[in-house]
Amino acid sequence: MNTTPTTADPDTAAGPAVDALGTSAAQVRSAALEELILKDPGQFRILTGDRPTGRLHLGHYFGTLHNRVRLQDLGVEMFVIIPDYQVLTDRDVADNLTWHVEELVLDYLAIGVDPARSTVFTHSALPSLNQLMLPFLSLVSVAELNRNPTVKDEIAHSRQSAVSGLMLTYPVHQAADILSCKANLVPVGQDQLPHLELTRTIARRFNDRYGNGTAVFPQPEALLSSAPLLLGTDGTKMSKSRGNAIALAATADETARLLKGAKTDAERHITYDPVDRPEVSSLLLLAALCQGRTPQEVASDIGAAGAAALKKTVTEAVNEYLAPIRARRAEYADDRAHLRRTLREGNERARAVADATLAEVRAAMNSHY
Amino acid sequence: MNTTPTTADPDTAAGPAVDALGTSAAQVRSAALEELILKDPGQFRILTGDRPTGRLHLGHYFGTLHNRVRLQDLGVEMFVIIPDYQVLTDRDVADNLTWHVEELVLDYLAIGVDPARSTVFTHSALPSLNQLMLPFLSLVSVAELNRNPTVKDEIAHSRQSAVSGLMLTYPVHQAADILSCKANLVPVGQDQLPHLELTRTIARRFNDRYGNGTAVFPQPEALLSSAPLLLGTDGTKMSKSRGNAIALAATADETARLLKGAKTDAERHITYDPVDRPEVSSLLLLAALCQGRTPQEVASDIGAAGAAALKKTVTEAVNEYLAPIRARRAEYADDRAHLRRTLREGNERARAVADATLAEVRAAMNSHY
Repeated sequence: MNTTPTTADPDTAAGPAVDALGTSAAQVRSAALEELILKDPGQFRILTGDRPTGRLHLGHYFGTLHNRVRLQDLGVEMFVIIPDYQVLTDRDVADNLTWHVEELVLDYLAIGVDPARSTVFTHSALPSLNQLMLPFLSLVSVAELNRNPTVKDEIAHSRQSAVSGLMLTYPVHQAADILSCKANLVPVGQDQLPHLELTRTIARRFNDRYGNGTAVFPQPEALLSSAPLLLGTDGTKMSKSRGNAIALAATADETARLLKGAKTDAERHITYDPVDRPEVSSLLLLAALCQGRTPQEVASDIGAAGAAALKKTVTEAVNEYLAPIRARRAEYADDRAHLRRTLREGNERARAVADATLAEVRAAMNSHY
Repeated sequence: MNTTPTTADPDTAAGPAVDALGTSAAQVRSAALEELILKDPGQFRILTGDRPTGRLHLGHYFGTLHNRVRLQDLGVEMFVIIPDYQVLTDRDVADNLTWHVEELVLDYLAIGVDPARSTVFTHSALPSLNQLMLPFLSLVSVAELNRNPTVKDEIAHSRQSAVSGLMLTYPVHQAADILSCKANLVPVGQDQLPHLELTRTIARRFNDRYGNGTAVFPQPEALLSSAPLLLGTDGTKMSKSRGNAIALAATADETARLLKGAKTDAERHITYDPVDRPEVSSLLLLAALCQGRTPQEVASDIGAAGAAALKKTVTEAVNEYLAPIRARRAEYADDRAHLRRTLREGNERARAVADATLAEVRAAMNSHY
């Protein structure tokens, strides 16, 4: 999921706990899960999503979106939540929420999220999802909420009075998102593992306390992706607000202009060297991802032709890769009625699932009168 | 409202901030509100309620319930919430929630809560009420949540790890309860004023931020009741768990037995002296409340006849007063189908109001897609 308040980008992963070979237990388990997915994708249901804070860019795409479509196409059932309530505190977004949500859905449709197979829905449309908040809040302590790394970070960086109740309870909201549709798999970055752990804790405690021997909720597992690190065109973290990101929805000309101004270095011979030549290497990686090659192959083709040739190669690769995506996006953008119907149908489907879950929860808790 | 986790009884009021005459600003305002109610009851909507933790007793009755029925009969619109989600952490209650809820509704019907005029409903039946939690949580800071006296108390008396997220966010849940039905009046004890203040803050902040110049929510006012202090039969605070409380549902014999064992003192001449003779005075007060007289009158009638005569007087007064209430309760208890229909209809009515409020909230927040 790509929905935390402060760590929305895939390239902010904290250092994982690793074994002697540099592989974390979560990575080992993720590899095993990938094999299980290939064998029997039907046993998995994924919850994923993005906060509606702007058009998605290539960092999002190669970081998470591409993987999501891959999993969908493998046959995994997918629920894609647009947590519109999580952006309330961002005034600019809140004032144009409809626009932000619709642009996000356009991006989804453009990259191949198929509404017939994947359920795209907005958080605010599912009251029964939020109904889970009460029992879930009763199952976690204030100490556990304060221990969450994102919250600790926020409290350390600002004042406690600047941290909202919404942010403090954020991991519980995420648990409600995931468990409401009984997802058993959540694609996450390393930094999201503590959040998912609390979801697993809540699921376990609920089952122990109210399950009468049966598991009302699955304990969802993390699917770590090996997201490549793409820098923005200025060599810093890719972010819409820095103007260094290529939006999926950008035109070919805008893309060319942005890449023409991209930061490189003085060395004319182009080589792939992420440590010492991060900007050049990120451009090579981007071209490689678009062309389905290795960055070393791209570098070798360019050789001593210099930064201008590199930029030309990357621009062509990106524009060629995005051309069909952009064409589909334009088509969908012309048909707002279809767009809204897609979202409405997704909301209805998600609501039916969340309602069924809530009914089970209420039965388990003896609150049917 | 009588729904806090730790201060459910009317006789736990903390010392109010008072003026030179010993009258708090809240008391002055409450007196003014009482006059407004007499003039135009139709402008008020009250939210009140009781946690479903057991049969109601005379402390509840003379503390809050009697006043509630008075206000209903004056023509004030009344929403009575049964916060079934707030008792989740009480295992014994949670396991028998249906029983507890139904007994509570029986008590309501018995004392004269009229389902045709007052809407009795369970919290868990209103998903759209909880949907308000998200914007409301975004409008309060963690510092404000920690500042709540009940929460501070709990954290001081136990460990932080023993305080649940549900308890920490309790005042926000209460705000959702109150504002979901747009109540503008809440009968409270002095100790509940800080909770209500947070509800007012949330209403004000929501209106400021999303209202576009109109008030989506009222800022509900406190109606302080001058609840008389009734002690339990052992002279300590009246409480079901201490076995010192006379339940509305008790039989006349049970009542007589309990009062026969009531604590008094060695002084044969009965006088009303709450400071020096608290047990005797509480019994006099109870008889007086049942007979519509002053405790001094009751004392004067008994004179030197001693504690046995006092207990006889009180027993007769209580049993006579409760006889019609108990008769009605027995009738309602025999017709469970009617009982469940009452609750179902209340839930439907409350749900319609909460749904309408949520629709307004979503429109104000631009989250209609």
